[in-house]
Amino acid sequence: MLHQASYEFSVATRGRGFYEITRQVSAWIGDCAVQQGLITLHLRHTSASLLIQENADPEVRRDLERFFSRLVPDGDALFQHTAEGEDDMPAHVRTALTAVNLSIPIMDSRLVLGTWQGIYVWEHRVEPHSRRVAAHILGE
Amino acid sequence: MLHQASYEFSVATRGRGFYEITRQVSAWIGDCAVQQGLITLHLRHTSASLLIQENADPEVRRDLERFFSRLVPDGDALFQHTAEGEDDMPAHVRTALTAVNLSIPIMDSRLVLGTWQGIYVWEHRVEPHSRRVAAHILGE
Amino acid sequence: MLHQASYEFSVATRGRGFYEITRQVSAWIGDCAVQQGLITLHLRHTSASLLIQENADPEVRRDLERFFSRLVPDGDALFQHTAEGEDDMPAHVRTALTAVNLSIPIMDSRLVLGTWQGIYVWEHRVEPHSRRVAAHILGE
Repeated sequence: MLHQASYEFSVATRGRGFYEITRQVSAWIGDCAVQQGLITLHLRHTSASLLIQENADPEVRRDLERFFSRLVPDGDALFQHTAEGEDDMPAHVRTALTAVNLSIPIMDSRLVLGTWQGIYVWEHRVEPHSRRVAAHILGE
Repeated sequence: MLHQASYEFSVATRGRGFYEITRQVSAWIGDCAVQQGLITLHLRHTSASLLIQENADPEVRRDLERFFSRLVPDGDALFQHTAEGEDDMPAHVRTALTAVNLSIPIMDSRLVLGTWQGIYVWEHRVEPHSRRVAAHILGE
Repeated sequence: MLHQASYEFSVATRGRGFYEITRQVSAWIGDCAVQQGLITLHLRHTSASLLIQENADPEVRRDLERFFSRLVPDGDALFQHTAEGEDDMPAHVRTALTAVNLSIPIMDSRLVLGTWQGIYVWEHRVEPHSRRVAAHILGE
């Protein structure tokens, strides 16, 4: 019979960069004993993102960071909201350009991720932060 | 027992800018008497977005608008699809760069939004529009 | 009574461009006999996207392609991850700037898409690929 469960966890970031949470999310699916269903993750912040990207060559993530650093430069004179420093508004823009929630089907007790897909918290602030992720699962 | 409900509402925009819908969405969750579950919002348009962003300092939203206006300039000679004016194709591009649907878990009868997160319709067209949002809730 | 179903299909792309899947997704909803509910699509790749965009004037999609080609140029010297060629890293960046999953409510046995909305696989690689889409439906 269909049932649901909720969960929340935090990710301690060490500043700008990618923090993989695939294993943690998969472990929770196992705890919930859901074989088929849907999981939704929501990041409760406006200056970090949830991103599904390649988990093989780490150079892909470094290139993503290089591209976004050039596209949304820290300290850009365009920005008025600078209360928390040069990376404050760029972090909001990067978040708007990506996403804070994801929904992924579950089949055979596993996320239906592709071979090269991993789930990441992408920290956009330069300083370390504690980021909260809320999760909801539905299935049987 | 798990149940679902559907809802649709419209947002009258006064042209380019952000229109917060958090309160309206929260009120509907109350009407549905869902304590734990999942809500999905879908914007039925291709030239406006749904965005979760900071609801505290309004300068953040003005800076987002400034950044996107520079990134995707109105009247860019690159664009061929200009039937509805200089902001026509930029509105489609801004929509592609952001999102038209969002899924957010519900806990304790509330959206699990972070302290600073609000849900916005982001109108990308210069003229006022009526924007339709379809909502689906699942929970108990 | 609420029930769920899962499905997976592949899309044969002929290189960079848009491939509409709206009809295929709608047909599956019909097969599942779901009148009201929620469908989630997940693309199992990191160099192609799922995008909801205008299905009327094809020039819109050509302009989207022109814009993204200029924003994330193939062969950009910024990128280090070039194992699969000049379009390798740009494909990852385009994917990060858009999305690989979508959730859309169903009403009256139909997706609640707007009049001008179609669902597309957006292939970012220059060469043809076979792209897998996992789908989950919930409803009654």
